[in-house]
Amino acid sequence: MVLADVRIELKPGVADPEGQNTKKALELLGFQGIKGVRSIKLFEINLDMPKEEAKKACEEMCRKLLANPVIHNYRIDLK
Amino acid sequence: MVLADVRIELKPGVADPEGQNTKKALELLGFQGIKGVRSIKLFEINLDMPKEEAKKACEEMCRKLLANPVIHNYRIDLK
Repeated sequence: MVLADVRIELKPGVADPEGQNTKKALELLGFQGIKGVRSIKLFEINLDMPKEEAKKACEEMCRKLLANPVIHNYRIDLK
Repeated sequence: MVLADVRIELKPGVADPEGQNTKKALELLGFQGIKGVRSIKLFEINLDMPKEEAKKACEEMCRKLLANPVIHNYRIDLK
């Protein structure tokens, strides 16, 4: 059993309005020293297969469904 | 400068339709051996303050804005 963290984040240069607005909201609440906020999507996928196979499967999942290659980078961490 | 990963996830027992539908969609695409998919929100926050202060600030951010204590657990990782 493998637990995979699949992290889908925006490529550098792609607008991140959710992150920007979260930063603004935090500043309006009085928080200081915030240089930036990025919003990231994470899928925790529980897989019943060996680790090497799981890594390959997760990469294919990103290519086929989870990530949009035009705007997203993805990273896979297996536990 | 501290980079904080603030991970907002649903508490156990709270329905996660996004995760369930992602699982269904992956299975429809032919992926096998998926035991579960959980959807998680991550904020990567760039803070200009010492580490101990950053940890406290992030916890306060979660309490005040980022997380809903009724349905969310949060975890803070500093880098």
